[in-house]
Amino acid sequence: MAGFDTLRWRDGHLELIDQRLLPGECRYLACDSAKAVAEAIRGMAVRGAPAIGCAAAYGVALEAHRLRSAGPEKFESGLERAFQLLAGSRPTAANLFWALDRMRRNRDGRRDGDPKAIAAGLLKEAHAILQEDVRLNRRMGEHGAALLDDGMQVLTHCNAGALATAGHGTALGVIRSAVAAGKSISVVVDETRPFLQGARLTAWELAQDGIPVTLIADSAAGHFMRRGEIDAVIVGADRVAANGDVANKIGTYTVAVLAQRHSVPFYVACPLSTIDLGVASGADIPIEERGAEEVTGYRDVRWAPAEVTARNPVFDVTPAALVTALVTEKGVINAPDRNKIMALFQ
Amino acid sequence: MAGFDTLRWRDGHLELIDQRLLPGECRYLACDSAKAVAEAIRGMAVRGAPAIGCAAAYGVALEAHRLRSAGPEKFESGLERAFQLLAGSRPTAANLFWALDRMRRNRDGRRDGDPKAIAAGLLKEAHAILQEDVRLNRRMGEHGAALLDDGMQVLTHCNAGALATAGHGTALGVIRSAVAAGKSISVVVDETRPFLQGARLTAWELAQDGIPVTLIADSAAGHFMRRGEIDAVIVGADRVAANGDVANKIGTYTVAVLAQRHSVPFYVACPLSTIDLGVASGADIPIEERGAEEVTGYRDVRWAPAEVTARNPVFDVTPAALVTALVTEKGVINAPDRNKIMALFQ
Repeated sequence: MAGFDTLRWRDGHLELIDQRLLPGECRYLACDSAKAVAEAIRGMAVRGAPAIGCAAAYGVALEAHRLRSAGPEKFESGLERAFQLLAGSRPTAANLFWALDRMRRNRDGRRDGDPKAIAAGLLKEAHAILQEDVRLNRRMGEHGAALLDDGMQVLTHCNAGALATAGHGTALGVIRSAVAAGKSISVVVDETRPFLQGARLTAWELAQDGIPVTLIADSAAGHFMRRGEIDAVIVGADRVAANGDVANKIGTYTVAVLAQRHSVPFYVACPLSTIDLGVASGADIPIEERGAEEVTGYRDVRWAPAEVTARNPVFDVTPAALVTALVTEKGVINAPDRNKIMALFQ
Repeated sequence: MAGFDTLRWRDGHLELIDQRLLPGECRYLACDSAKAVAEAIRGMAVRGAPAIGCAAAYGVALEAHRLRSAGPEKFESGLERAFQLLAGSRPTAANLFWALDRMRRNRDGRRDGDPKAIAAGLLKEAHAILQEDVRLNRRMGEHGAALLDDGMQVLTHCNAGALATAGHGTALGVIRSAVAAGKSISVVVDETRPFLQGARLTAWELAQDGIPVTLIADSAAGHFMRRGEIDAVIVGADRVAANGDVANKIGTYTVAVLAQRHSVPFYVACPLSTIDLGVASGADIPIEERGAEEVTGYRDVRWAPAEVTARNPVFDVTPAALVTALVTEKGVINAPDRNKIMALFQ
């Protein structure tokens, strides 16, 4: 288990590790409204599909708590605005919409209750979502650990770790569980430009756990695969379509293409809450494009010429045909397709 | 023609644009000895295989000039040390060794001459290498321009431009020549971590020429190819083996694999001086690995945890089978192989 809480409920506030500051500083950001949570999501203080889902659930709960004494009308309209604000914070991660749907169902189940009871119910639901996420990650880890053999060197892209979830992690959860089972696993991590989740977050959390990690430039993954130095790839997902296509951090598709060429298994670890049966294929998943300034430099440093145009799609789609297996809390799904995915939900 | 000289001879010195400072500052670094030139090459003030070759030639000429009155023995041993120092500055670029061989042959052709005559001959030879490089780039450009159609969007990786040569450029030379021929070409450039030659150098020199350029993260190339937004790829080379395997900036192999998957032509522009008949295949090309600090941050900024290990191979090998065509000063070689390459040298 990672030695930190990515999100936690403290004294009526949601506290999030501000991941923009890692690894230099591990500081919690306190949020006391849906607006503050939506800003934390949009600004990437919290990121990673499952963590975004948890944060959004707390965003709804916070708003209900804040408005619980404002009268039924204000409560109702304020809560509705909170749902909309949070749903608009980022477009790609399925867990955001999944968590908001679940919170909405919880509220709808108490439509005639008073605001205080609704607020209490919503907070309980947010806690449940967070606790379940850790439990599901551990279950995924146990299923996925069987895919990793002792002595393997595993490549990962971006951060699908404890920091991307409520704890343990999806892709890194599988690695953690394999290590906990006594296997010696070393990790190669792509730095993951432009936001550097690999260099900043994955390197940091694996180092904390004493799991050997080697950082490489994104464009070096092919070189190491060609040299036979990568035994498996495991990544997380932001949204999986009903046919098994995977939207994940920009560059994931490239890693999958390279893995196929080199006969390296390519695994995607994600809870069912990341699978969106409402999108038939990856072509229907909205791909967020963020500001050019993330590509023309990093934080306050600019290295590209001032006048240059940049494009910054932050996710890409890996077709299901490139996915060796999906690792879910219900087990490992080899060569995922529509039928196998539908069966998961029955 | 680009509006700057990457290298120039001024008042008995070699002046190089210090490419570590671009695009923020365009400042010339003056070198007055082989040691200074070797340091400029090793420290990447000058980079790009043809530019490294030119710089090394001047490094020999400078040393000969410096020692021309020191007596024949000191001259001879000093010159030999200069050859060794320069040959050890970087291991991958073929042009470095090609230029040093040519300078050595020039000196050997005058073994009985006096140091001053040898020094004068070596300087003349360095000038000839530089002038030839520009001429060959223009010829390559003319041959290669026929491969690019009006309206194409072309992806390039790293910088194979005027800054990587004595002028005009190899890959960017082809683009410049196509534009000069009246074609509308737009360029997508990978930022090219860790040294950011794409973001800093290619974006800068294309913007100066008014050629539309869009910067992307290295890992976004696959996304844009998958969307059909890339019509061709053109890159330079640091060394081409006798069988057509291409060593070039780390990440080139990945781009070539993606191009093949998406049926996008993958062109490599390089003069014959980059082709090393002494290496049978890419497996025999030494791949330089530079310091971890290039990957754990950029310049003075560190973003990875202090304790993290990083690997930094700065070149990779693209097998000839992935190369649609080589563009050389002798013409376009489709599907390069050993026979076609040997024929180029006859």
